Amino acid sequence: MNDYILAIDVGGTNTVFGLVSKDGKIFAEASIPTHAERTAVDLFKRIATEIKKDIFQIEEGKLLAVGVGAPNANFYSGKVENPPNLGWGTVDLVKILKDQFHVPAWITNDANASALGELLFGAGKDFKNFIVVTLGTGLGSGVVVDGELLYGSNGFAGEMGHMCIDFHGRKCTCGKRGCLEGYVSATGLVRTVAELMGKRITASKLRSVPYDAITSELVYNYALEGDPIALEAFEYTAHLLGVSCANVAMLTAPEAFIFCGGLANASELLFEQTKKYMEMHLIENFRGQIKILPSGMDNNPAVLGAAALAWMEINR
Amino acid sequence: MNDYILAIDVGGTNTVFGLVSKDGKIFAEASIPTHAERTAVDLFKRIATEIKKDIFQIEEGKLLAVGVGAPNANFYSGKVENPPNLGWGTVDLVKILKDQFHVPAWITNDANASALGELLFGAGKDFKNFIVVTLGTGLGSGVVVDGELLYGSNGFAGEMGHMCIDFHGRKCTCGKRGCLEGYVSATGLVRTVAELMGKRITASKLRSVPYDAITSELVYNYALEGDPIALEAFEYTAHLLGVSCANVAMLTAPEAFIFCGGLANASELLFEQTKKYMEMHLIENFRGQIKILPSGMDNNPAVLGAAALAWMEINR
Repeated sequence: MNDYILAIDVGGTNTVFGLVSKDGKIFAEASIPTHAERTAVDLFKRIATEIKKDIFQIEEGKLLAVGVGAPNANFYSGKVENPPNLGWGTVDLVKILKDQFHVPAWITNDANASALGELLFGAGKDFKNFIVVTLGTGLGSGVVVDGELLYGSNGFAGEMGHMCIDFHGRKCTCGKRGCLEGYVSATGLVRTVAELMGKRITASKLRSVPYDAITSELVYNYALEGDPIALEAFEYTAHLLGVSCANVAMLTAPEAFIFCGGLANASELLFEQTKKYMEMHLIENFRGQIKILPSGMDNNPAVLGAAALAWMEINR
Repeated sequence: MNDYILAIDVGGTNTVFGLVSKDGKIFAEASIPTHAERTAVDLFKRIATEIKKDIFQIEEGKLLAVGVGAPNANFYSGKVENPPNLGWGTVDLVKILKDQFHVPAWITNDANASALGELLFGAGKDFKNFIVVTLGTGLGSGVVVDGELLYGSNGFAGEMGHMCIDFHGRKCTCGKRGCLEGYVSATGLVRTVAELMGKRITASKLRSVPYDAITSELVYNYALEGDPIALEAFEYTAHLLGVSCANVAMLTAPEAFIFCGGLANASELLFEQTKKYMEMHLIENFRGQIKILPSGMDNNPAVLGAAALAWMEINR
């Protein structure tokens, strides 16, 4: 067995981790409840206990480093700073990891980890300039420039989800107005459905479902059946995502956008239309050049992303 | 006399050029009409003739390279591609320069040249991550990431002026709708004045001036006198610029924005207000960090920018 990274993806509900080789093979993998109300030390102590179990079989000297993807994780400071879904406050996560695992450790946020995963193991392998957009409950992004992740001066670059698309627009959970993730995300899609039910008089199966029970999966299934509100909700989502991709593209000139996360599974409703709107909002010398692609990581992209982070750093 | 670069800034009306040393001193300088309807070869032949004159005194072997800032100039291809204000079509400018001056040559667009000028000789000297915004007839920008200009995959990165701020908004000269430069530029300011004269019923000296005669300087002077329409036009400009700076900042996490160009001279009406709106549109972990600064190049920033381009390349 080759050398490996312990790669950890910290989620609000579950934390997934595995041992990942340099070529992106996951040797062993497990998931435990995060227990968001407990401390960070508690979580990583439990992971340290888990990886002593038989399925992991860590051999002396084979574990080279730890890579972690976590909300609000700052690559530069090594700290997780007040993550919205975890009761950790601000903690020095890299120190906790080194204390627990006795190897070098790096951390970054989930979307940045995804971008590094695509760069090393996924759909970004053939590109030096691309942008990963994670379309889940919210919208995250990671920007790769000349083969390197763009961290920027504060370590938090790539917050496409909070770029303002309409400053008279929807209230966002961050306190601002008109943030892209209030429109282009699983929750944004549901908000669009609600607005459209008010604006339009067309019949829709969605009118018989309480707001709280509408999910992006339901909207997707109804759209495939031809429901007009569901179809228009996807078109509107693609429109705003297309405008935003054009905006980001004219600033950074990428070769491709890579869409991942749950909502990106609705590819037949989202990819072509987003591309159409992106092209409409590009100036001439950017048109016809930029690809829109699905993730190239089949299983466990979040764990592979965290692994990619550590592999990139350890090979410098 | 030290070694120097022949630095050339090609404008729609005049072309300015000079000899610039490594520390940003301009030894000799001249300006000739561009004659936009003639060819590129014609222009650079005339410059070659000019620099044989006494004031330039080019000594054998002292001219190391040529750097050119020109509209639609592509650093990668060495070509100028259909510049909107010049009748050149697409020309291989680097080849023309090498044929004419027999030294290495590099080209880029005006805003990128400005960014490199600030990086080497101006307000960007102390930063590794910043964005230069040129506020003239239009709006250009150049993005510096980790001490390097961001060209992106096609060489055209940094087109902040055509990022869409309102997709139901004003028609832009590029054919699209709602581009930032339709609002935040000398012409954009005048368009805002016209819109506000329609929307408001307040008295204003601007109501007695034909649209064609309203300039950004006039609006600036009236604003200083307290004219309500002129003041509101500047506030609106600052608002949209602030939102856009926040958007760009959350993507690239710069240390500073540097505003240059004619409209940036209205600093007392633009800088503080832009900063206020930028802060309002940033998420928490970006607030209170990003400076808004005037250009640090006192004389001839365009020529210094073109020189910076060549100095950076020749020193690689």
